[in-house]
Amino acid sequence: MVAYEELSKEELLQLKSDLEAQFEDVKAQNLHLDMSRGKPSTEQLNLSMDMMDVLRSDSDLVCEEGVDCRNYGVLDGIAEAKQLLADMMEVPKDNIVIFGNSSLNIMYDTIARSMTHGVMGSTPWAKLDKVKFLCPVPGYDRHFAITEYFGIEMINVPMTPTGPDMDMVEELVSTDPAIKGIWCVPKYSNPQGITYSDETVHRFAKLNPAAKDFRIFWDNAYGIHHLYEDKQDYLIEILMECKKEGHPDMVYKFSSTSKISFPGSGIAAIAASDANLADIRKQMRIQTIGHDKLNQLRHARYFGNIHGMVQHMKKHADILRPKFDIVLNTLDKELGGLGIGSWLAPRGGYFISFDSMDGCAKAIVAKAKDAGLVMTGAGATFPYGKDPKDSNIRIAPSYPTVKELKLAAKIFVLSVKLVSIDKLLQTK
Amino acid sequence: MVAYEELSKEELLQLKSDLEAQFEDVKAQNLHLDMSRGKPSTEQLNLSMDMMDVLRSDSDLVCEEGVDCRNYGVLDGIAEAKQLLADMMEVPKDNIVIFGNSSLNIMYDTIARSMTHGVMGSTPWAKLDKVKFLCPVPGYDRHFAITEYFGIEMINVPMTPTGPDMDMVEELVSTDPAIKGIWCVPKYSNPQGITYSDETVHRFAKLNPAAKDFRIFWDNAYGIHHLYEDKQDYLIEILMECKKEGHPDMVYKFSSTSKISFPGSGIAAIAASDANLADIRKQMRIQTIGHDKLNQLRHARYFGNIHGMVQHMKKHADILRPKFDIVLNTLDKELGGLGIGSWLAPRGGYFISFDSMDGCAKAIVAKAKDAGLVMTGAGATFPYGKDPKDSNIRIAPSYPTVKELKLAAKIFVLSVKLVSIDKLLQTK
Repeated sequence: MVAYEELSKEELLQLKSDLEAQFEDVKAQNLHLDMSRGKPSTEQLNLSMDMMDVLRSDSDLVCEEGVDCRNYGVLDGIAEAKQLLADMMEVPKDNIVIFGNSSLNIMYDTIARSMTHGVMGSTPWAKLDKVKFLCPVPGYDRHFAITEYFGIEMINVPMTPTGPDMDMVEELVSTDPAIKGIWCVPKYSNPQGITYSDETVHRFAKLNPAAKDFRIFWDNAYGIHHLYEDKQDYLIEILMECKKEGHPDMVYKFSSTSKISFPGSGIAAIAASDANLADIRKQMRIQTIGHDKLNQLRHARYFGNIHGMVQHMKKHADILRPKFDIVLNTLDKELGGLGIGSWLAPRGGYFISFDSMDGCAKAIVAKAKDAGLVMTGAGATFPYGKDPKDSNIRIAPSYPTVKELKLAAKIFVLSVKLVSIDKLLQTK
Repeated sequence: MVAYEELSKEELLQLKSDLEAQFEDVKAQNLHLDMSRGKPSTEQLNLSMDMMDVLRSDSDLVCEEGVDCRNYGVLDGIAEAKQLLADMMEVPKDNIVIFGNSSLNIMYDTIARSMTHGVMGSTPWAKLDKVKFLCPVPGYDRHFAITEYFGIEMINVPMTPTGPDMDMVEELVSTDPAIKGIWCVPKYSNPQGITYSDETVHRFAKLNPAAKDFRIFWDNAYGIHHLYEDKQDYLIEILMECKKEGHPDMVYKFSSTSKISFPGSGIAAIAASDANLADIRKQMRIQTIGHDKLNQLRHARYFGNIHGMVQHMKKHADILRPKFDIVLNTLDKELGGLGIGSWLAPRGGYFISFDSMDGCAKAIVAKAKDAGLVMTGAGATFPYGKDPKDSNIRIAPSYPTVKELKLAAKIFVLSVKLVSIDKLLQTK
């Protein structure tokens, strides 16, 4: 492969003409493809259908503690569901509080509570002149949407192959008391699929924040969402690590079964220190009489225990792996060596992150749309939707069928090539 | 019956001695009875067990709009669940947004959002020096807990047999811009079982608040929770009424199926004007990807439509009616004419409200506990847990069995008599 930059203007124009013909061919097919969202496919949803039969009209709906799950009672989760999610989140059962169907909602509530009531007795953030959050980029748009909604200033921190730039994190967190948190997706990160290295986690646990109410928002959304049985990333458990370093209260950990059972109908939890959970329960007691215990029971009985859940995740992996392979193989084959984009091959999670030449991401997404392929909006992976280099594009291969994905990947690389050529031609 | 007040000191002492003997007899039985919480009984929960079989592993889980309810998508409720709750709440389908499992949680979120983001563009309440709420008393402790949690000053407004004292409501709401809301349980109110009269609702709809962001928090928790088929209260629908009066945005209406299907595993909704719902959706989009659509589908398919739900409520009534009758008959028979307490006979809802002689409620609840009967804490029906007269006690007859209830009612009236005699003896 010859890098595009090495080509002459004439060669680029010839190439462009060939690629445009291909693009028109695809466009003529009038396709409707979507690689925009980290949604499980129908085939994946079918994996959990037996869950619908777990609780029946003749079932005993009393949980281990002897509470009738059909009635009021039990604020923070039934014992068997706590055990299951504790094992999934690698923390003791007592450090788990179960909420409703969405870990995003727990994160939202956590920020909202900090705004109005502070953190373990600190000044409510709404009463401060300025509140800031660190945002490793590229990252998850819905995290950034929450902090933006509450008027929290977001500071970009570049991601590296081992996690966020920890020099920058340490410097900022230790000197600026307005910095109250950092958004992290520490394993198979959204969108890059990066898992924080041991050193990164150690450095997180050793942070000495200027703000006493600084918290690490550790969104371990993809903790057991591996793609390969023989190639798995390992992430150090942060709660224990913070405890060891004398900062037991510095982290909130979030997770859910959204991409294990059913998105929207799963169960979600927070894991944190006793002191943090006591603070959270004070609010919960006011906010709700309790979450859906029948759905907690349904999940606990369906999976049985963490081993059942891990087995279940292998079935998800079997469906997802070929899809990731299609995209990665197409990227390798079509773009490898051209010098017009870079990407990582993740070992888990839901996304592939693509970095185009600077200033090309928006145009690539628009080009792809022109041929019937919807991608996540360029910029979405940055706070305020502003990618300073306009280069990052999130690819979500989970939802389309294998057949659709082959077409989608083809459209994507065509779009990358065409936009890159236009860019290069500007300077030839 | 001779009123206790008419009795001489000697007669009271003799009576006290007889009643104490009865009380000791009951106490010796070492009972564990509970009339403290508005919890459906096991028999009532059993009514909805077939709901567990509605969605099965071989069911089509696609809703009317063509969305797979197992996956992400649909922020504010699937169409068939909206229709069901719209009919239940007597509003158009488009004025409904469905949330999770708890209307209390919606109310909490509504206040929390108003604190940080204001109401339809108004100044966030957290930025104001003072925010006040009107609280018809006696009322629902969990309403008061929310406003207390957010530091909102609560002003007691006495309940009358036709609803809150509207002269006072009109006067305060029209003159004090710090008053941002009023908590209402307009039908079969908690705890009195009072339904607001037509005039009361009309006067609510005609309010001219000094605060543009004043809202009526209309918690219609017991809208279809009748006890009798032939004696039902009728409540004018407030959304339409406010619209007619030119105040379409002045009210939020809340409801859930907690006491229709399963407490904690039901579905809950808010009904409001288009403008209010647009304001709410702005937050929802940040807070969550969507609530549990499978549970929405389960409810919609189980009840079919509002007629199915109304039929279902008759079965609840058949279980609840005899329980209310036991308590009311015992009160009538044992306390009627004694001048030591008053109560209303509600036609629906979950509670009977008892007013003792002033200064006796706490002592009565303590006395009952002494004999193994747990009542709702005295004072709970007032903001800050402070009943100025120390006279109101909430009786919740739903959870105990008929047999338990007979004993519980007996203990209760014995406790009332004994405490009242002590009170009267102080001035003899």
